[in-house]
Amino acid sequence: MTDSNCVFCKIVAGQIPCHKVYEDQHTIAFLDIAPFEKGHVLVVPRCHAVYFTDLPSEQIAPLGMAVRRVAGMLLERLPCDGFNMLQNNGACATQVVPHVHFHVIPRWNGRQINWTSGKYDGAEELQAIQRRLCGER
Amino acid sequence: MTDSNCVFCKIVAGQIPCHKVYEDQHTIAFLDIAPFEKGHVLVVPRCHAVYFTDLPSEQIAPLGMAVRRVAGMLLERLPCDGFNMLQNNGACATQVVPHVHFHVIPRWNGRQINWTSGKYDGAEELQAIQRRLCGER
Repeated sequence: MTDSNCVFCKIVAGQIPCHKVYEDQHTIAFLDIAPFEKGHVLVVPRCHAVYFTDLPSEQIAPLGMAVRRVAGMLLERLPCDGFNMLQNNGACATQVVPHVHFHVIPRWNGRQINWTSGKYDGAEELQAIQRRLCGER
Repeated sequence: MTDSNCVFCKIVAGQIPCHKVYEDQHTIAFLDIAPFEKGHVLVVPRCHAVYFTDLPSEQIAPLGMAVRRVAGMLLERLPCDGFNMLQNNGACATQVVPHVHFHVIPRWNGRQINWTSGKYDGAEELQAIQRRLCGER
């Protein structure tokens, strides 16, 4: 299932670039370009569905495993001390892109928690964090 | 795995009461008594783990399926228009109970989104929402 007007379906199809940090047969994960914290990742099923409740059963386990894996990458490689997972369903729940996605947001001890979008200092910083999360120097 | 000092392990064991809305072999779900919105449910694996990343692989699919089911119950029976899923890992991420749990928070069109804890008008209101989510009159 894909939706030709969906920005995440276009990213999945490679028609829009992203800073990918993980992918498998069912899932793709990339840096949010308007992060709550630097290293904020979106984990997205390749299959188009608007709400989490719309996902077919066979998508649930791979998506959960991908979220666990990405969170482990943040803890180990960013590194961070903890993380939030946030998944919004419906405009009333602040869902902006109508294609299921999990926000995985790194958090640190002694740092105020932030729920507003920031930005990166250009493409170089995005690429540096992408490389670090991918385990490259 | 259980932790004898963990309040959610005690709820799983039936040593502390809760307003249960769903359970299966791996998972239990009950009303949060300090809800962001009335109908806010916590979905908890029976297995004790602190971070989502600490959960064994075989727990991921049942937990995801339970979250999807509970969210569907909210949409259909509360009913609500959308929902947020929030899952906090570490004190730095505002995790209060150190046992993995998903917050599933109902949302409505035209209503301001709220991220602060409220309360119920006593046990009767909790029970009424519990019964509604369980499909009872």
